Amino acid sequence: MSSYIEPRILKGFRDFLPATEIARNNLLERLELSFRSYGFVPIDTPALEYSEILLGKGGGETEKQVYRFKDHGDRDVALRFDLTVPLARFIAEHREELVFPFKRYHIGKVWRGENTQRGRYREFTQCDFDIVGIDSAAADFEIIHIMRNTLHDVSGGEVIIHINHRGLFNRFLSRLNLLDKTVDILRTVDKLSKIGEEATLRALSELTERDKAKEVLGFIGIKGSYDEILEAMTSAAGGPCPGSERLALLHKFMLDAGIADSVVLDPSITRGLDYYTGVVFESFIAELPDIGSICSGGRYDDLVGLYTQDKKFVESLKATGTSIGIDRLVAALETLGRLKVKKSYADTAIAWISDNAGGLCQALAEKLRNEDIPCEVLLDEEKLTKQFQTAEKKGIRWLIIPDVEKPLGSALTLRDLLRRKNIEGLNLEELINVLNHPN
Amino acid sequence: MSSYIEPRILKGFRDFLPATEIARNNLLERLELSFRSYGFVPIDTPALEYSEILLGKGGGETEKQVYRFKDHGDRDVALRFDLTVPLARFIAEHREELVFPFKRYHIGKVWRGENTQRGRYREFTQCDFDIVGIDSAAADFEIIHIMRNTLHDVSGGEVIIHINHRGLFNRFLSRLNLLDKTVDILRTVDKLSKIGEEATLRALSELTERDKAKEVLGFIGIKGSYDEILEAMTSAAGGPCPGSERLALLHKFMLDAGIADSVVLDPSITRGLDYYTGVVFESFIAELPDIGSICSGGRYDDLVGLYTQDKKFVESLKATGTSIGIDRLVAALETLGRLKVKKSYADTAIAWISDNAGGLCQALAEKLRNEDIPCEVLLDEEKLTKQFQTAEKKGIRWLIIPDVEKPLGSALTLRDLLRRKNIEGLNLEELINVLNHPN
Repeated sequence: MSSYIEPRILKGFRDFLPATEIARNNLLERLELSFRSYGFVPIDTPALEYSEILLGKGGGETEKQVYRFKDHGDRDVALRFDLTVPLARFIAEHREELVFPFKRYHIGKVWRGENTQRGRYREFTQCDFDIVGIDSAAADFEIIHIMRNTLHDVSGGEVIIHINHRGLFNRFLSRLNLLDKTVDILRTVDKLSKIGEEATLRALSELTERDKAKEVLGFIGIKGSYDEILEAMTSAAGGPCPGSERLALLHKFMLDAGIADSVVLDPSITRGLDYYTGVVFESFIAELPDIGSICSGGRYDDLVGLYTQDKKFVESLKATGTSIGIDRLVAALETLGRLKVKKSYADTAIAWISDNAGGLCQALAEKLRNEDIPCEVLLDEEKLTKQFQTAEKKGIRWLIIPDVEKPLGSALTLRDLLRRKNIEGLNLEELINVLNHPN
Repeated sequence: MSSYIEPRILKGFRDFLPATEIARNNLLERLELSFRSYGFVPIDTPALEYSEILLGKGGGETEKQVYRFKDHGDRDVALRFDLTVPLARFIAEHREELVFPFKRYHIGKVWRGENTQRGRYREFTQCDFDIVGIDSAAADFEIIHIMRNTLHDVSGGEVIIHINHRGLFNRFLSRLNLLDKTVDILRTVDKLSKIGEEATLRALSELTERDKAKEVLGFIGIKGSYDEILEAMTSAAGGPCPGSERLALLHKFMLDAGIADSVVLDPSITRGLDYYTGVVFESFIAELPDIGSICSGGRYDDLVGLYTQDKKFVESLKATGTSIGIDRLVAALETLGRLKVKKSYADTAIAWISDNAGGLCQALAEKLRNEDIPCEVLLDEEKLTKQFQTAEKKGIRWLIIPDVEKPLGSALTLRDLLRRKNIEGLNLEELINVLNHPN
C-alpha cells in the first residue's frame, strides 16, 4: 500500500459511469428483445483468438490496427476486431452442432488500435445479427426487416435503409474490363459521400481512363424511384442477371410487408470490405443523416468457406448480416433527446435510522422487493436532511423513514422528495399501495 | 479466399453455443434484476489497462498469469484479471462524479493465463457487487443479505454463508508474535479444506514453532454455535476488539432479518488475498458443498487508497464486496438440474411456403411480434415434413402454415409439433388466442 499509482486509462478506452451504463444497457436490452422476437439466438466467442484465424482475410488496414501479441505459451494471438470473422470460424468449427439456416445475434466488445484523433474508440461494443446457411431473397429481406423495425423501435424515428447489390456492381465493372481493379475501385467509391464527386473522379482516374472513371461515377450516381434505378443499373451492367432479379424480388417483399418507403436503392453503397458478395446495406435515422450509417452489412457467401475443407457444407456457409454501431446509435439517441437516462433502477429507499437497525431495515426493504418494488437501504450515518440530499442525487424519489421504537413495518413515514412532503403513519400495506399508485 | 485456415480456439477459451448462452444469459439477467432491486447500479471499465494499474498490488502469482504486452504505442498494457482492481482505479479517478456510499455491480469478462490442466478457464465471466465509501456493519450485512437472497433465488436451494473477520485473525497472530508472517500463514490456512489438517500443520510448522502452529490450527478449527465460536475466537485474540464487535452486531442483524440460519461463523475462512482487512465471506449451496464457494469476497479498506493522494477521500474509499463465479454457479445449477435450458426465445414460426412469400410471411410474423409473441420466419426452401424437423430441432412448438392463395392472415393452419396435430382454418385473431392460451 506504500506507493501511489496515478489512476488513468488508455487513450481510446472508456469508463462507463452508472447513468451512461444504465442507458446503454437499456438500449442493448431492447435490441436483444427485438432479435429474440425474430427467433435469433445468442452465441459468444473468445475475445482472444489465434492471429491466423482473425487475420486470415485481413487487408493491410485491419492488420495494422489489431492488438496482437505473443501469449505465455508463445502463441501468436490477437484481440478480435469484429464479430464477423469469429462467426465464420465458429460456424466452420461447430457446423455439426448447429441448425441451418442459423440465425444468431452477438453483442460484444471488439478492439482496434485506431487513430483516436478521428474521434474513434479503441474498444467498442458491436451488436451483430446474421443468417448463415442460405442465399435467398427471404433471408436478405429478413435482415432488412429487422434493421428497419428494430432501429425504428429504439430511435422512435423514421429509418432509411440504402441497399445495393455487389454482384450487379461487379458485372458492371466486368463490362468495363475493370474487374481486376474491383478492390481499389470499391475503396474509392466508398469514400464518395465523404470526399465528394470531384475528388472521387480524380481518384478513379488514377485507376483507369477518364472515360471509364466517368462511367463508374455515373453508375453510382443513378437517381430515381427504386424501379427506375434498378432498370438503369441493370442496363448499365449488361442486362438482367441474378443480382438484378434479387433486387426486384426484394422490392416486391418490401411492398408486401409495407416497408417499401423505408428502403432506397442506392448504387453508391458498396461497403469497402471486399468480402461482400451480394446485397449490401447501410441504414440512417432520417432526422440525422449526417451522423452516418447506424447499421451496415451485407451478404458474404465466401467468408466461412475460408475455415473449412468440407465441401458438403458450402451451401450452409452462405451468409448475410449486419452490425449496429452502438456508440453511434447512443450518440444519435442523445442528440434526439431520446436516450432514456436514469440514475438508478430503484426509486425507493429506506433511510438510515440507527447503528442497530441494519437488519430490520434490510428486512423491511425485502418486503418491498418481494412486491417487485426495487428498494435500497441507505447506509449514510447522517442526519435526515443530509440523507434527503443523497437520495435525490441517486435519483430516488421515495424515502421511507421507519420509527425505530415501533414494530417493523408500522408507523412508517414516507418522504416524497419530488413534492417535498411527508405522508405519515403508514403501515406496510398502505405504503406498498402508495408506491404502486403514486400521483 | 484461396488458402484454408483450420478453425480452432485457444486452450482455456470457449465458444458458447445458443442453448448454453441462453441459459447463461437467463442466469445473468436474474442476478442483475436482484442487484438492481437493492439499488445497485452498473458500471463498465476497459478490458485493457496500463499494466502498472492492474499489477500495482499484484503478487507473484497474479503477475505470472496476466496477459501483458506492448501495444502499438509501445505502452505496457494488460488484460484485466479481476473486476476489483479496476473498481479501485475507477473510484479514485471518478470520485468527484459519484455518490458515496457507492453501490455498484459489474458483470464482465476477465482473463488469466492459468494452467488449464486444473480445469481452469483462461477467459471467464465475473459478476461483482461492492459497496464503496463506508465501513459499517450495515454495509457488510447488505453484502451478506444480497449473497444469501440472490443465490437462494437463482439456485432454488439453501445457501450457507461462511464468514470471518480478518482483523480478529490478525489480532490473534499479533498475540502470537506472528504478524510479520501473516501473508504466508493466510495462504497456508486458506488451503486447509483442500489439503487437510495434517498437511496444514506441517506447512505451518515450517513457518513457526510447532506449538504456535498447533495454536493457529486450533484457532481456525473452533466449532460451536455462532455465539460460542465468537466467544472462543475473541478470547484467543486477547479479548473484545472492533472485529469481535462487528461480528456480534452482524449476528444481531441476521437474527433481525431472519437469515441467521444461513450464516456460519468460520475461523478457517481467511481468503488468500492479502488486501482484505475486515469481514470476509464464502458461500456454498447446501446440497453441493463439494463444488466450493460460489461467491466470495470481503472488506478491503485500503485498496482504493493505492490510486489516490487525496486524503480527504480516505473514508469514501473503504470498501466491501464480493464476486460470483459464474462458471461454478452454472455448473452447480446444471448438477441440480435447475439450469433453465431452451434452444430459442421463440416457440412459434411461420413455415416457408414459396419463393414469393418472403414479404407476406414477415408481415404476418410482425403481427404476432406486436402481440408479444416472438415469431420466427423459416427460410428453409424444403417440403413441410422437412420443415417440421427443422422447427423441432430449433425448439419451436407451433408452426404456422399460411395459405398462399388466400389473403394474409386468413385460412391459417397451425401445426402443434408437440402433439403432432393440426388446427385448421384459423384467422389471425383465433391464432393469437390459441398461442396465448395453449393447452
